[in-house]
Amino acid sequence: MNKKKIINDPVYGFVTIPSAFIYDLIQHPFFQRLRYIKQGSMSHLVYPGALHTRFQHAIGAMHLMSLAISTLRAKDVEISEEEEEAALAAILLHDIGHGPFSHSLEQTIIEGVSHEMISSVLMQQLNEAFEGKLDLAICIFNNKYNRPFLHQLVSSQLDTDRMDYLNRDSFFTGVSEGVISFDRIIKMLYVVDEQLVIEQKGIYSVEKFLIARRLMYWQVYLHKTVVAAEQMLLQALRRAKELAQEGVALFASPALVHFLHQRITKDNFLSDQSHLSWFTRLDDTDIMSAIKAWSTHEDKILRILCSKLMNRELFRTEMRSGAVTATEFQELQKRTQATFELQDHEVDYFVYAQTIQNSAYDPTQNNINVLAKDGTLLDITAASDLSNLDALSKIVVKHAVIYPKEIFN
Amino acid sequence: MNKKKIINDPVYGFVTIPSAFIYDLIQHPFFQRLRYIKQGSMSHLVYPGALHTRFQHAIGAMHLMSLAISTLRAKDVEISEEEEEAALAAILLHDIGHGPFSHSLEQTIIEGVSHEMISSVLMQQLNEAFEGKLDLAICIFNNKYNRPFLHQLVSSQLDTDRMDYLNRDSFFTGVSEGVISFDRIIKMLYVVDEQLVIEQKGIYSVEKFLIARRLMYWQVYLHKTVVAAEQMLLQALRRAKELAQEGVALFASPALVHFLHQRITKDNFLSDQSHLSWFTRLDDTDIMSAIKAWSTHEDKILRILCSKLMNRELFRTEMRSGAVTATEFQELQKRTQATFELQDHEVDYFVYAQTIQNSAYDPTQNNINVLAKDGTLLDITAASDLSNLDALSKIVVKHAVIYPKEIFN
Amino acid sequence: MNKKKIINDPVYGFVTIPSAFIYDLIQHPFFQRLRYIKQGSMSHLVYPGALHTRFQHAIGAMHLMSLAISTLRAKDVEISEEEEEAALAAILLHDIGHGPFSHSLEQTIIEGVSHEMISSVLMQQLNEAFEGKLDLAICIFNNKYNRPFLHQLVSSQLDTDRMDYLNRDSFFTGVSEGVISFDRIIKMLYVVDEQLVIEQKGIYSVEKFLIARRLMYWQVYLHKTVVAAEQMLLQALRRAKELAQEGVALFASPALVHFLHQRITKDNFLSDQSHLSWFTRLDDTDIMSAIKAWSTHEDKILRILCSKLMNRELFRTEMRSGAVTATEFQELQKRTQATFELQDHEVDYFVYAQTIQNSAYDPTQNNINVLAKDGTLLDITAASDLSNLDALSKIVVKHAVIYPKEIFN
Amino acid sequence: MNKKKIINDPVYGFVTIPSAFIYDLIQHPFFQRLRYIKQGSMSHLVYPGALHTRFQHAIGAMHLMSLAISTLRAKDVEISEEEEEAALAAILLHDIGHGPFSHSLEQTIIEGVSHEMISSVLMQQLNEAFEGKLDLAICIFNNKYNRPFLHQLVSSQLDTDRMDYLNRDSFFTGVSEGVISFDRIIKMLYVVDEQLVIEQKGIYSVEKFLIARRLMYWQVYLHKTVVAAEQMLLQALRRAKELAQEGVALFASPALVHFLHQRITKDNFLSDQSHLSWFTRLDDTDIMSAIKAWSTHEDKILRILCSKLMNRELFRTEMRSGAVTATEFQELQKRTQATFELQDHEVDYFVYAQTIQNSAYDPTQNNINVLAKDGTLLDITAASDLSNLDALSKIVVKHAVIYPKEIFN
Repeated sequence: MNKKKIINDPVYGFVTIPSAFIYDLIQHPFFQRLRYIKQGSMSHLVYPGALHTRFQHAIGAMHLMSLAISTLRAKDVEISEEEEEAALAAILLHDIGHGPFSHSLEQTIIEGVSHEMISSVLMQQLNEAFEGKLDLAICIFNNKYNRPFLHQLVSSQLDTDRMDYLNRDSFFTGVSEGVISFDRIIKMLYVVDEQLVIEQKGIYSVEKFLIARRLMYWQVYLHKTVVAAEQMLLQALRRAKELAQEGVALFASPALVHFLHQRITKDNFLSDQSHLSWFTRLDDTDIMSAIKAWSTHEDKILRILCSKLMNRELFRTEMRSGAVTATEFQELQKRTQATFELQDHEVDYFVYAQTIQNSAYDPTQNNINVLAKDGTLLDITAASDLSNLDALSKIVVKHAVIYPKEIFN
Repeated sequence: MNKKKIINDPVYGFVTIPSAFIYDLIQHPFFQRLRYIKQGSMSHLVYPGALHTRFQHAIGAMHLMSLAISTLRAKDVEISEEEEEAALAAILLHDIGHGPFSHSLEQTIIEGVSHEMISSVLMQQLNEAFEGKLDLAICIFNNKYNRPFLHQLVSSQLDTDRMDYLNRDSFFTGVSEGVISFDRIIKMLYVVDEQLVIEQKGIYSVEKFLIARRLMYWQVYLHKTVVAAEQMLLQALRRAKELAQEGVALFASPALVHFLHQRITKDNFLSDQSHLSWFTRLDDTDIMSAIKAWSTHEDKILRILCSKLMNRELFRTEMRSGAVTATEFQELQKRTQATFELQDHEVDYFVYAQTIQNSAYDPTQNNINVLAKDGTLLDITAASDLSNLDALSKIVVKHAVIYPKEIFN
Repeated sequence: MNKKKIINDPVYGFVTIPSAFIYDLIQHPFFQRLRYIKQGSMSHLVYPGALHTRFQHAIGAMHLMSLAISTLRAKDVEISEEEEEAALAAILLHDIGHGPFSHSLEQTIIEGVSHEMISSVLMQQLNEAFEGKLDLAICIFNNKYNRPFLHQLVSSQLDTDRMDYLNRDSFFTGVSEGVISFDRIIKMLYVVDEQLVIEQKGIYSVEKFLIARRLMYWQVYLHKTVVAAEQMLLQALRRAKELAQEGVALFASPALVHFLHQRITKDNFLSDQSHLSWFTRLDDTDIMSAIKAWSTHEDKILRILCSKLMNRELFRTEMRSGAVTATEFQELQKRTQATFELQDHEVDYFVYAQTIQNSAYDPTQNNINVLAKDGTLLDITAASDLSNLDALSKIVVKHAVIYPKEIFN
Repeated sequence: MNKKKIINDPVYGFVTIPSAFIYDLIQHPFFQRLRYIKQGSMSHLVYPGALHTRFQHAIGAMHLMSLAISTLRAKDVEISEEEEEAALAAILLHDIGHGPFSHSLEQTIIEGVSHEMISSVLMQQLNEAFEGKLDLAICIFNNKYNRPFLHQLVSSQLDTDRMDYLNRDSFFTGVSEGVISFDRIIKMLYVVDEQLVIEQKGIYSVEKFLIARRLMYWQVYLHKTVVAAEQMLLQALRRAKELAQEGVALFASPALVHFLHQRITKDNFLSDQSHLSWFTRLDDTDIMSAIKAWSTHEDKILRILCSKLMNRELFRTEMRSGAVTATEFQELQKRTQATFELQDHEVDYFVYAQTIQNSAYDPTQNNINVLAKDGTLLDITAASDLSNLDALSKIVVKHAVIYPKEIFN
């Protein structure tokens, strides 16, 4: 009996691992590391169920890719076995370069090195390890392949990445607004001139998908308490790195020690293999075990930030349409300084202003094309009978100001 | 407007936090710690979604308690506000003494100290912190209150603890066999002579509940790969503790250092407050950050166990109805020794035999009583029309033998 | 034991019937009749699961009313027992005057008599039967009560009627786009100056609700195949009535006979109790058993329409943004006449043009008010950060032209 | 673009119609008729959502067949395109001979003619209409094909028929106890020596399936109120047929007229094509429109039975382990006669005793075989570690006695 490995996924039921090569990729330590990196960073502090990982997400997105390929084949789009496996590998590895709490990390301990860059390098290394078997996958991932729809399934405004994360984040947070009809969207996919398009009658489902995405942004990803927790983490890591570089003793796991004690630029990150090697051993447990240990550290700044994170005494975020005024901001700083008895330069770790923006659909790049019944292609904003989608393309900007609640007691 | 705090729970939708006192309990660091302790220990290595925590479970069980109390009141069972809050507090705190990976921990680094014992001590400490407000909750928890049904809702063979964990584990693993009709069961609860009973027409739902529990045992909790992973963790911790006590340098978080370097007996655990204090700072991240760091340790035993855990190269478990024979076991040991080039005494870390047993229903203690239409009470095994439940009361014993897969290559 | 009746509802789980009076209303033949009237008329021909009835919908809406009242009370909005029961009765009976396939019926056999009118009369009759116990319910239903929020829960742009039908139609059709977070919306309801409002943070859920409603309109209620089937039914009933009045023999159930053979105007419908009495005995089975019998009738028009309905050979609907031109329409008529060998005047039964319009939100009446954190009230279109809702208030007009598919063979 | 037709099914999402021939079968009037025959007969009077039809069930079972075939092929079981289409057709048509409210019908108006017999004849007629394209399907249906697993997928103790109806009835009734892990069971199917078997690790899912089936029997199919309603319908039809044959005027649809006024034996049913032809035009609306019309009939027996059915004033069923005694039964008859002022021979229409039996698993026929890891086959009762399944094979007998509630007022 030819047994295929199966993974139990609460979102889709069973996910079949389609080939031995894909199985080997999943088994690789680079990929297993994703088991310990939460997809939603700090959002579990607001939605306690949101502990799902990049591992699950990558597997789920691969499952959707597999459904999409079946659908396209059933509509007589020819896709070779080799192309299929490459597309599956590409989506499986699309997030391989994410570190723990990526956003906070990229601004502190591995400053200036984006996860996309790291993904790219790690894929190359895997390709070497697997003796070139990832050539086509990398080609698709980088949009160099002459059948762009395969790349678009991996990365576009209607890709299997987004479809999975909306589904999954919605499932694990319990925010039912994010539920999308991924099965209907996938059934409506088609390929024209090697470009991914959506059949006319799938238009409502795509609208709903864009709206769900916008809702998830404001209700989960940019939820004000999540924003506060991530800022607190970022500031704690910034403080820890400063202390480490001043030679102050700090508990940290071996991998975290490496990044706290060195000043790594983008250039030397990419040129010195040891950085990458330590990076592939870094996950959420390194950060969280440090935050917990630091919550009794003698440095007051670090101690306050970390103990508040551990005990979920999170800062308050005010989300506004206009920016905070200088006067108001100074008032918040003054109160904070007084409440916590801080030095002038220390107040920056406690009061922050942040600009947040999001648009649900960006018609200027990689637009979503609708295949009308007469065979013409239209941008989805033109195909819809409502001006909704115009609205969804607008960039919404909000201004967050974040400070400790106690200052108004 | 009187605003009640709400928690988003993907299992039940919204959970309302019913009072300020309950909110304060949830905010306490002892309870916040449960955010970082997975309910399912290592089962996420088989069911990747199973990352849910004891925090979520405790909140969920509290929600079911609240539904149960509403149902009983609607049937004219009088329950005072004070009793309600106490029952809610009792179920909320029922697992407060669990450490990370409790089973493995209780056999290694805090040997001989059960989580029940710790729960009891921590509840006392909370009671002091809250100036006696937990008196009645503790009384109910310990079944000293003169209305036993309140204790039975916290802890019995049909309690809100079990109802929540079956629901929750089923939801997060994706094993739909564990789904129970908790709403139907709760609607069928009633109280006779201060004892919890189930109305006759709820009997099928209770049967299904018992069967779901049995299925979840064999399919999740005692899944052979989970059993292997937990043994590997247990052996890694055992080895680490031995090395630590021999003075070998080992990475560990401050809280874990405390437990690795001391030999703590049950007696001194309870008499020396520092042990408990460190215990309340111990969670999954301490264990997992150590396991990861140890996966490159110079000690071969520790290194192999930990790197295999991290890379999910788990041992094989054979589950049998009969015990493994001495000859067979020795053969497995011999092969293991040869494959890994081990000393005689080292093979014990790699080959283990374990007896596993479970019964879905134990009629000898705290049995489930059914209220017949004529008002008489019957044990559920007598009330059912099938001998099924007799079968479910049988203790099933299985024998596991666990060893590295490589020895048969 | 005080036992409350429970109804199993696949949408919400258990629905409790809250009082003896509500139970008696449900048991009344007027209400039991709703068991045999499908909520979705002909939409089951496109969505085979959509067989749910107005009975289930009314019970479900009552359940949501009951949740809404609990939520409001928990926020210290005082609602008396009497007001609660009246609101529950009002929502339970809000559709009591619907006939089978209301839309088609109102244009043919009970021409000019709207279901709202009939609901009103039937409620009065029930009030007499129950000796005035429906006084307050009727007062709330007609928005004559001095606490308008109770009426708004029954009938407004965010009422329990819409919440239930979106949920329910989505559940039974399988169109997941219609799923709304009714629990979240309900939790966000509040009352200011006796008006129903929604808390600021519920705004995304309300947006999603409006969008879901729009999607369900275009994807289900105005689905082009559903539109075709309903037109065919309407034409069949029109033809049958004409034949009956010409004295042609036609099978029909006693209740349907009454309406086919009489010419009933709005005035005599309301003045002659026998019409209403026969109306309360009319349901889907009368219509469908006739359609089936008529599918072998000797009248060609009636036979074709009915046999096509029974065998689901439905006409084609073209849905366009512009109206069909006279030339084009005549061409369709000509082809139809040729294909089916029809007389000039007969072609009207087979080719129809229809204008369809819908807007998701109408800000000009009963607008949805949002309660900002500073206590001010804003229309939801002003409170949202996107111009989406402006878009949703636009009236979308489509032009349908419907004709037999065969004419293009 | 090669477009496959898709059906929206709330249970499975999308169901693809796999071929043009299958589409043609579905479009055939014999199959379209199933749209108007409820799967659950009268059970909607207890579970209002249970209005789903044999049409939906047949489509759903076909979908599961299609999943099963894909799974088996992925395990290298060769199944030709022709075999696939035949298996799909066989399951699609397995219930084609069901009439409305089959159980009641088979005991009254088409006495002695089973739905299996009619299915067989209708399949033959379809085969002629489709010029022999159903040859293999019929061969599989009748278990004459040399690959028995295909028949077993259509009809056995673990067939796609049962899997679908448990899923579907559970979904539409809201009785969550009936939910089965059909996807897991299907993934565990395999074929050994052309026999369908289940892999060892699927054993818990099969146990759960058998238990779910038992629960659905007692909680839905044999629910005492459903049993009462079906008896009332049966008696009403029996009475109507007697009246018709005595020449009493009775409203009935043309198809029902045919069966009420003739005395049809099994032999003449099969020999006279007109009977079958009328039968294929009989559905739930014929029965229900008659019941409603008869609820004001001058015959007292008929009128009482039918008006009680319409107004849901159902008889009481007592379900007991022992049979009712003669004395007790006579007492019920006497009271009934007095309450309704009946003649001696009339009381039989109002008081009935009925024996009900069910076993969840019958090991004596078509047993479910488990494939152990060592390749041996075991009956599931032997393969399970519990004696549960022995219990499930026991035949449970219950005795129902049914009478009007009023007799105890």
